[in-house]
Amino acid sequence: MHYHSRGQESIIEKIIYLFSKLPGLGPRSARRVVLHLLQDPEIRLKSLLTLLSEAAEQITKCNECGNIDIISPCNICNDHKRINHTIAVVESVADLWAIERSGFFTGKYHVLGGTVSTLTTGGDPLRLAQLMSKVKERNVEELIVATNSTLDGQTTAFYLTEYFKEVNILVSRLASGIPMGGELEYLDEGTLGAAFSLRKPLE
Amino acid sequence: MHYHSRGQESIIEKIIYLFSKLPGLGPRSARRVVLHLLQDPEIRLKSLLTLLSEAAEQITKCNECGNIDIISPCNICNDHKRINHTIAVVESVADLWAIERSGFFTGKYHVLGGTVSTLTTGGDPLRLAQLMSKVKERNVEELIVATNSTLDGQTTAFYLTEYFKEVNILVSRLASGIPMGGELEYLDEGTLGAAFSLRKPLE
Repeated sequence: MHYHSRGQESIIEKIIYLFSKLPGLGPRSARRVVLHLLQDPEIRLKSLLTLLSEAAEQITKCNECGNIDIISPCNICNDHKRINHTIAVVESVADLWAIERSGFFTGKYHVLGGTVSTLTTGGDPLRLAQLMSKVKERNVEELIVATNSTLDGQTTAFYLTEYFKEVNILVSRLASGIPMGGELEYLDEGTLGAAFSLRKPLE
Repeated sequence: MHYHSRGQESIIEKIIYLFSKLPGLGPRSARRVVLHLLQDPEIRLKSLLTLLSEAAEQITKCNECGNIDIISPCNICNDHKRINHTIAVVESVADLWAIERSGFFTGKYHVLGGTVSTLTTGGDPLRLAQLMSKVKERNVEELIVATNSTLDGQTTAFYLTEYFKEVNILVSRLASGIPMGGELEYLDEGTLGAAFSLRKPLE
């Protein structure tokens, strides 16, 4: 008889299952996490519960850019020190956060929430009409298409270039090449090929 | 200026921090998990919240063996189909669960909740007095010491052997050797050494 197949244990099993569906976790790691939480429910479980309940109440999606924050428009859209004339177009909030961590970008964002493959669902899931009116109304000079360097991301970049041809703005794309610290030996052919064809003269 | 160092975002950062402290997770994986939850708060976050609140209310530690369950004594201690005369002594609830998954053991458990190194804190943190009276009162015939095959686990096994010398029961230890499917080439010397010295005649 298997202990964890019995009905009475279902709450623990349910939680393990839910955790195992989180990105990066599997059945084994989920079990470890849940056990860790349940072994000290008064402290570990309760503090997680408190914060998650707070989050469930406070977190909202920014109407402007699609970022996740506790206010809408979000703190980035509200930040008057950031430049308005450059908008980075990203696929997901995760990408926005990654760019923010790099600290290199001081403009605004537009989170697509998908790629061109999402377009098959109909409507305007990438909110491109909203981005278009923003571009027209706010003197946007440049859209930096920061989609992933995948087939889907590149197709999306081309699609956006076409879409924004009717307005007179620069649509640019993040550079491709060898990542910092990257060793040629371990790079895939696509990256190496791009690095060769996009090579620059040494100054 | 770094977006996520500002005060307003603290709730998101707090949750990421809490998740990053869970076993097997780090800052990067925690961020992915939290983003996943927050991107669909109505479904993902709420369902996790519901289950965790249920767990916080229901989960308790078994007074008998130290297992985690929704009742105490737990479902294993309450199970009259399991034999009472053999008790497996494990370091943690995780070890108990691992043994249960194997399905090989049909006796009861005693979760130490630590090793001999825990004894320095004084008192009876491993609840050995409780185990001793159980051994005396319930005709226990064998204690299977299923502590980890670490220095600490082995020291604990020897300590338990000494501790239970005053009562006339068998104190056994899980076998050491080559794990199933293990390739000699990749085994550490300790395991190989144990496998050699504990070798058995082929029948």
